Amino acid sequence: MCPRSIDLTQVTEWADGRVRRVQDSLAGEEPLEIRVGDNPLAVTMRTPGHDLELAAGFLFTEGIIQRREQIISLEIGKPDAGTQPDTQRDTQSGTRPVVQPGTRLGTQYGNLVVAQLEGDVQLDAEKTQRNFFANSSCGICGKASIDAVRSRFLRAPNAGFRVRSDVLCGLPGNLGESQDIFSRTGGLHAAGLFTANGELVVAREDIGRHNAVDKVVGWALREGRVPLAEFILVVSGRCGFEIAQKAIAAGIPIVASVSAPSSLAVQLARELNLTLVGFLRGRRFVVYSGEERIILTAE
Amino acid sequence: MCPRSIDLTQVTEWADGRVRRVQDSLAGEEPLEIRVGDNPLAVTMRTPGHDLELAAGFLFTEGIIQRREQIISLEIGKPDAGTQPDTQRDTQSGTRPVVQPGTRLGTQYGNLVVAQLEGDVQLDAEKTQRNFFANSSCGICGKASIDAVRSRFLRAPNAGFRVRSDVLCGLPGNLGESQDIFSRTGGLHAAGLFTANGELVVAREDIGRHNAVDKVVGWALREGRVPLAEFILVVSGRCGFEIAQKAIAAGIPIVASVSAPSSLAVQLARELNLTLVGFLRGRRFVVYSGEERIILTAE
Repeated sequence: MCPRSIDLTQVTEWADGRVRRVQDSLAGEEPLEIRVGDNPLAVTMRTPGHDLELAAGFLFTEGIIQRREQIISLEIGKPDAGTQPDTQRDTQSGTRPVVQPGTRLGTQYGNLVVAQLEGDVQLDAEKTQRNFFANSSCGICGKASIDAVRSRFLRAPNAGFRVRSDVLCGLPGNLGESQDIFSRTGGLHAAGLFTANGELVVAREDIGRHNAVDKVVGWALREGRVPLAEFILVVSGRCGFEIAQKAIAAGIPIVASVSAPSSLAVQLARELNLTLVGFLRGRRFVVYSGEERIILTAE
Repeated sequence: MCPRSIDLTQVTEWADGRVRRVQDSLAGEEPLEIRVGDNPLAVTMRTPGHDLELAAGFLFTEGIIQRREQIISLEIGKPDAGTQPDTQRDTQSGTRPVVQPGTRLGTQYGNLVVAQLEGDVQLDAEKTQRNFFANSSCGICGKASIDAVRSRFLRAPNAGFRVRSDVLCGLPGNLGESQDIFSRTGGLHAAGLFTANGELVVAREDIGRHNAVDKVVGWALREGRVPLAEFILVVSGRCGFEIAQKAIAAGIPIVASVSAPSSLAVQLARELNLTLVGFLRGRRFVVYSGEERIILTAE
């Protein structure tokens, strides 16, 4: 059975005292392991679909690779051979066979992406944790997190890029229309790339907001479109530090969110000259950083 | 400077063509390192506040400890001595001093919690990653993730616990009223514990939904109230696998969310007999699992 982006199930709905059994669609969630050669790099809970993009985006936005060319190959991994623990039960006890520590066993087909990278890519064990960037040389604090991003990504976001206020206001609606899974499940984050004219280039959904962004950036990386110096990234939820960091990694000049940014996302955006827009709803938004990229006139 | 749960800043508001500079409140976000003795266990981006509860909850819901008594002490860590990289610059070049790999340097006061645990607590390196439970003996798949939770938490949620539909409908409003930071920033997740009569026992906010749940469970653990066999956990956002898993760890029989659950959260809830309620809004909700705990009559 392949991992699915949507699951159907029977549920009970209660509405003002009326009870009925209905069919409901659930947003898929399954773990995905990303391996580099034989080395496990990360496991993320994600919505199945666009998994190669997710892996490519993760490798890139987390700083493991700097260029598309460093990926020699990227493919859905096959389950490891000769391991079917569920069918190879100990017939005496009915329990699972004892597994020796370190033995690699079968991974469900479709929940593994294997990347072969160029030989000079450093796989620092510390870099395999999502939050490694917080662990910089001056310890654990917001400033250190920002300094770590600064030291990894020297490319400054495109200073000449501009978008009109009225274009900006139209983006969330446009992104929402592209959300296939959300419209059926109500349970997903979305991320989308838009041009300065408001055209949607790509949109991706995931149960994890970071994953939705990684899928978008991974798509662009594989298409040879990075750095994304002429695009706006729109995210459906809140904008925390990690979303802003991923946008900077991809060279995106403007991030717009329909909800609130965090204090550290705003600090990071201000220090690295990323335009950060929040509460983008209807005919209103708030600019937290990089106001010069927004043409604020009424139009 | 201590980490803050709210930051004030100047922003630009655009509303239908009108532009004005306003003061805005931002939800705080800073990294927190959790150490066990001298060993770094995890770094999480969190909203400062209730950090000891967060650490206690994390240790417990991630299965590092099974009982409150295993925590000998838990305190806000002091920055490591003798390390002020920002002031100890190399005066010749103006750059940072070179840091030897492995050297531990100063962590900002307030962004570190140090736990001393009983000697028999195993600190498995694999267990220090949030998603380690997905890495079980039969590989990476949703079923393995569920089996891993099952094997760690033998306690079944309280089968006799009941709540009335009308009580359930009142909980999100009650939780919302307790959200001090959210009401000022619009940027936080909340988690709250309620009795069967709808009384709020504790509520916590965080930029990360897992952290909000860990703070609630950590509070209960420190108060000696775990297992939480007579309580309902209400969360402000979506309910994914990890939220359901944390509830099971704490012995909570009912989890209610104002938004959608994921497929894997529903599977886990059904297999481990947790009651899972979603889309709890106004006078409507959906029961995904464990319907017997909800008194579904109109009342």
